[in-house]
Amino acid sequence: MQNSNNKGGFTLPGESGFEDLTLELAQKWGADVIRDSDGTVLSDEILNSDYGIYSTICIIRDHNDWANKNSDKLQQTFLMTNPKVAVDSILTFHLLDDFFEDQFKVNDTTDSIKYWQVFDRTTGREVNRNLWTYEEEAGNVTIMNAIPWHKYTVSFLAYRIWEEISMYNHTTNNWDKEHLMPIDPVYPETQEYMCNWLDNWCQSHPATTVVRFTSMFYNFVWIWGESERNRNLFSDWGSYDFTVSPLMLDNFASAKGYKLTAEDFINKGDLHVTHMPPTKKQLDYMDFINDFVVSFGKKLINIVHNYDKKAYVFYDDSWIGVEPYSKRFENFGFDGLIKCVFSGYEARLCAGAKVETHELRLHPYLFPVGLGGAPTFAPGGNPTRDAKEYWNHVRRALLRAKIDRIGLGGYLHLVQDYPDFVDYIAKISDEFRLIRELHVNGGPLTLNLNVAILHSWGSLRSWTLSGHFHETYMHDLIHINEALSGLPVNVSFISFEDLHNIDLNKFNIIINAGAKNSAWSGGDNWTTSVEETLTRWVYEGGVFIGVNEPSAIDNYDNTFRMAQVLGVDEDKISQICHGKWQFAITPDTDIIPDGAYVPLRSKVHLTDGNAKVLAATDEHPTFTVNKFGKGYGIYMSSFETNAINNRMLLNLLIKYSGNTDSKYITSNPYTECAYFPADKKLIVINNSDQEQSTCIKTDSNEMSFDHIAPFDTIITTL
Amino acid sequence: MQNSNNKGGFTLPGESGFEDLTLELAQKWGADVIRDSDGTVLSDEILNSDYGIYSTICIIRDHNDWANKNSDKLQQTFLMTNPKVAVDSILTFHLLDDFFEDQFKVNDTTDSIKYWQVFDRTTGREVNRNLWTYEEEAGNVTIMNAIPWHKYTVSFLAYRIWEEISMYNHTTNNWDKEHLMPIDPVYPETQEYMCNWLDNWCQSHPATTVVRFTSMFYNFVWIWGESERNRNLFSDWGSYDFTVSPLMLDNFASAKGYKLTAEDFINKGDLHVTHMPPTKKQLDYMDFINDFVVSFGKKLINIVHNYDKKAYVFYDDSWIGVEPYSKRFENFGFDGLIKCVFSGYEARLCAGAKVETHELRLHPYLFPVGLGGAPTFAPGGNPTRDAKEYWNHVRRALLRAKIDRIGLGGYLHLVQDYPDFVDYIAKISDEFRLIRELHVNGGPLTLNLNVAILHSWGSLRSWTLSGHFHETYMHDLIHINEALSGLPVNVSFISFEDLHNIDLNKFNIIINAGAKNSAWSGGDNWTTSVEETLTRWVYEGGVFIGVNEPSAIDNYDNTFRMAQVLGVDEDKISQICHGKWQFAITPDTDIIPDGAYVPLRSKVHLTDGNAKVLAATDEHPTFTVNKFGKGYGIYMSSFETNAINNRMLLNLLIKYSGNTDSKYITSNPYTECAYFPADKKLIVINNSDQEQSTCIKTDSNEMSFDHIAPFDTIITTL
Repeated sequence: MQNSNNKGGFTLPGESGFEDLTLELAQKWGADVIRDSDGTVLSDEILNSDYGIYSTICIIRDHNDWANKNSDKLQQTFLMTNPKVAVDSILTFHLLDDFFEDQFKVNDTTDSIKYWQVFDRTTGREVNRNLWTYEEEAGNVTIMNAIPWHKYTVSFLAYRIWEEISMYNHTTNNWDKEHLMPIDPVYPETQEYMCNWLDNWCQSHPATTVVRFTSMFYNFVWIWGESERNRNLFSDWGSYDFTVSPLMLDNFASAKGYKLTAEDFINKGDLHVTHMPPTKKQLDYMDFINDFVVSFGKKLINIVHNYDKKAYVFYDDSWIGVEPYSKRFENFGFDGLIKCVFSGYEARLCAGAKVETHELRLHPYLFPVGLGGAPTFAPGGNPTRDAKEYWNHVRRALLRAKIDRIGLGGYLHLVQDYPDFVDYIAKISDEFRLIRELHVNGGPLTLNLNVAILHSWGSLRSWTLSGHFHETYMHDLIHINEALSGLPVNVSFISFEDLHNIDLNKFNIIINAGAKNSAWSGGDNWTTSVEETLTRWVYEGGVFIGVNEPSAIDNYDNTFRMAQVLGVDEDKISQICHGKWQFAITPDTDIIPDGAYVPLRSKVHLTDGNAKVLAATDEHPTFTVNKFGKGYGIYMSSFETNAINNRMLLNLLIKYSGNTDSKYITSNPYTECAYFPADKKLIVINNSDQEQSTCIKTDSNEMSFDHIAPFDTIITTL
Repeated sequence: MQNSNNKGGFTLPGESGFEDLTLELAQKWGADVIRDSDGTVLSDEILNSDYGIYSTICIIRDHNDWANKNSDKLQQTFLMTNPKVAVDSILTFHLLDDFFEDQFKVNDTTDSIKYWQVFDRTTGREVNRNLWTYEEEAGNVTIMNAIPWHKYTVSFLAYRIWEEISMYNHTTNNWDKEHLMPIDPVYPETQEYMCNWLDNWCQSHPATTVVRFTSMFYNFVWIWGESERNRNLFSDWGSYDFTVSPLMLDNFASAKGYKLTAEDFINKGDLHVTHMPPTKKQLDYMDFINDFVVSFGKKLINIVHNYDKKAYVFYDDSWIGVEPYSKRFENFGFDGLIKCVFSGYEARLCAGAKVETHELRLHPYLFPVGLGGAPTFAPGGNPTRDAKEYWNHVRRALLRAKIDRIGLGGYLHLVQDYPDFVDYIAKISDEFRLIRELHVNGGPLTLNLNVAILHSWGSLRSWTLSGHFHETYMHDLIHINEALSGLPVNVSFISFEDLHNIDLNKFNIIINAGAKNSAWSGGDNWTTSVEETLTRWVYEGGVFIGVNEPSAIDNYDNTFRMAQVLGVDEDKISQICHGKWQFAITPDTDIIPDGAYVPLRSKVHLTDGNAKVLAATDEHPTFTVNKFGKGYGIYMSSFETNAINNRMLLNLLIKYSGNTDSKYITSNPYTECAYFPADKKLIVINNSDQEQSTCIKTDSNEMSFDHIAPFDTIITTL
């Protein structure tokens, strides 16, 4: 195994049939580990080489023999039919009409049907069970005595007969293989089968040093529709709804002392969207599932450990109940966490988890097409450009927090036609190792500036919202998290409950950012006591930054519960006849660098005319600062991450946290730096595709860095 | 008096000191009546000429002698202080701090204070009266035992010490005159004074043939603020809140059997906005006031009639309780209604009122500046251009409904420097008389097409929303009303209650257009029974057109209660993870003429994929048609009135009402026409500033009209 200073910390996807290429690139990229991928097998030549070996296991699929014999133990979900309007007193639903028939099969056992519900969606009330029947043969539910012109829905349980990740890969790549079925560990028989299987597997794979779980048991929710015009009915990367089954619901009722209904999951058809504030029942259910996933997961990890192998978890796909920031995560006993990343915030998510080894899986994957369907290692693709873009996002986060390993995934042979990609990966592998080295003797210097992000999920959803950036770009908060991931500030994620349990004086800044009633803004979590606590905190010197519709809730005098602190409130139709304060724009070049902007998202007006308006679009203030007591309420209509806007955010944090004598900040916003006092090392990065120069104030003097090449990294000793 | 065919039906504003000009223009414009204006007096020379004489009376102002002696009988209003945050247990409000001191004086009599309220706006609860005190000398309310970090407001009664219309004219024109005070007829003493005064006035003005009331007693609500940066705190042309006083509230309680509180008017600071659905209490109060205004108004009109003069009402300013479509309007006994107009819908509003004479006051007024402050008869102004624009809007409505008179207001001498304006008024006066003549023997031919506009106010707010077009342009419905005002269709305005009381089969089309929770969309009026009734009506063949956020209400599965009928529903944050139906755009040139467009306002998605998308912006459908049973649900994201979009609306109405063999429709959308069968007269108008040609299908053939001059009118006999 290579282990010189510029080697190691790199996981290479090996490919059998390409043994020479595998070993050649392992050498070039400084790999110390070779892994298999979904659909690849490592040959003996590789397995017997001097590299560590990662083997990928998805414990709930690829057991079709057992699954076929135990088709009552497949994973399930609640589904709701599309609403139908009754035109007379009889209304019939063919339950699976709206859904992808390859994904679902109605579970019409007695245990299941007891959880089904029919709703009159016109009144919002459940229809009495005596008023509907199920015809097993036809798969129909028929409502008798329907009220004409009301619309109805049927909620029922269905088995999921095709594991969703393989379903996606299968259909995307036009495979013609057997459909893999997801088996459900809620049943003791499944648990026993899985334990035995894993034990056998470990025994028969002596070369494997690390078992990489993908991930545990339950996939994020991904419901496909019947029509090709609407295939993706619902997907949510944080929802627990695919864990459900009659047995799980019965177990929940025993454990928690009350029963859940279909509607607790169906939620008027909205299902459980991570972007919405969770209900108490939902949190209870998540807690119950998390307990189960960790308890049984730990058994599997123990088996791996019994064979002196390490157990890493890949934080994607079947990761429900595996949140690295949940209170039970450490109980799993994982040795490592692997996170695939496009963005800085994902690197921070990984870096902050309490495991020994933090590893990033870089994009692009070595696949012909990327996640969005655009070509990568295929005609029209430009994998080097993609890699540069993602690395540029990730690198600034690596300056702030230590990551132990990086690596790639996919089919290695695809890189053969892309020599510049091979060279670029060699370059960033070396760069990664240099950055990692900086952290060994101590972390980077951080401003005396503690930022808390306040939302409904608190620390459970630290850094991430729900999935990757390109899936959540419409939420301001992911832009803010991404900006913060590379800034020299301390970041915490807190819930509304935390406001009452922790000492807020440790924070300089609290940020609340999101759309009204979303999880990120907080919705009903904005209680009177939350308003009291934060109002007092600002009055006594805190800084509250609200973005988009912060603290927004209906049915009070103001839409923003923090309106008095912010000095602005949202425009609403019921005040369309009310006059608005005129204002002048007060430019503040300390905060807003050339090229920075605040897009207009929510339309607000000044409440008492006192807030200072830093920016506006037409007659709508988009960026305001309001002195409130000793503190400040600051409003931004939106936030969009990019080099210049990130700097605007940093300037804002610095100015209002009183960090006026900031050192180790680049003068040029297209560049960033970090200083590691233990080694007296300063690292400067150019985040742009142009040459840049910058000055940096150090403890002793002001240093100049001229003509830094596009995307380049410079490390110097002071 | 001139009374030839091309004379008459014109009211000229006379001006003393300009007697020759007055009589010369009366001749040129074909006037049969001369009027005074606010601030002008007619000389004997004019009064003794052979013209009818209108005299303007605003019965509640210009009585300062009496008002000074009866300062407890001035009109009043509820005001709410700006919210203040308590930082300890004592919180003091100086009541008038936020308000224009020349407009208000606190009414701190015992009768008044019993109606005051202090609210904790953080909890939304009233503060017990024992916990606050009023210090008369300072004009302060102080809350004891305030809860720190809660915000509070004080609602109190204030006298209005400056009648708002004179306040506006005064401050706009920098007058230096005594402030006129509004006296309140709620007191028997005021009523007695007013009756005597009017009797004397009639006796001493024998030349007056028509007493023009401006209007009755209570102005629309117009609250001015302390700061010049926020002078216009609130104005609403339909709100009854300026009618309030302790006596009126006591009288209400006696009449209706329950008491109103300050909060019933203050409404969390929103006050009563006509654009919001009225509450039951608000409707009760309006009914009570309307009864009072009509009862006492009738007494004054009887006095006028006793002197053999006519009584007209000017429908603006102090017109609260005077709605021409209220159930009591005819009881006033008015002989005429005068409406100042910028738009076609205002002409229709006037034309539809049940009075003998319908008169329009055209814009621009003969003032140096117009309502918005832009110059008119002053450097930079172009009154002829303005007059053309307004006439062009009004004229198409005159084709559909008969108006008896037109006229001008203001200072006649101002036209002396604008000979083209003088000529243009002569031209449109003649044009008006020709159009009026068409209606004498019978109305125009109308399509067999009955449109109902459905909103919270129903017929009470027929045609108008709340004020002029430029004050309400942000509401889709005013654009629709304006379009309809000149279309050959029958238009009704119905309330949600009407849906249960009238036979909907008489309507082909029902339109609901507005923002969620507004009066125009309907908010909570969208009950289950409304949904049932309309769903059934469409299923059986009706056509429901929804614009912007039709039938929108929170807390159900869909935002639009008519989602199943429309086939679309509004996007919402709780469904941000739900997939959307893909769609292709189906062009329909029968409906959408070249140049027509539907602006994107609300973002919607298809519910079941079946709605046909006629237009879209990016991925958002903006115009959809959904077959539902025998009928259709049609959605438009917005509607903007102009010649081409008006034609799009007409095409839509024609196509889906089954009026496929429509005659007397111009082929060129920049032109319109009307056919009067009794006289076999066809009138064709060019609504554009360009020459136009058009074809028109008549009962016998297809006629061509070539090279119609810009804005021109052609009348021909078939």
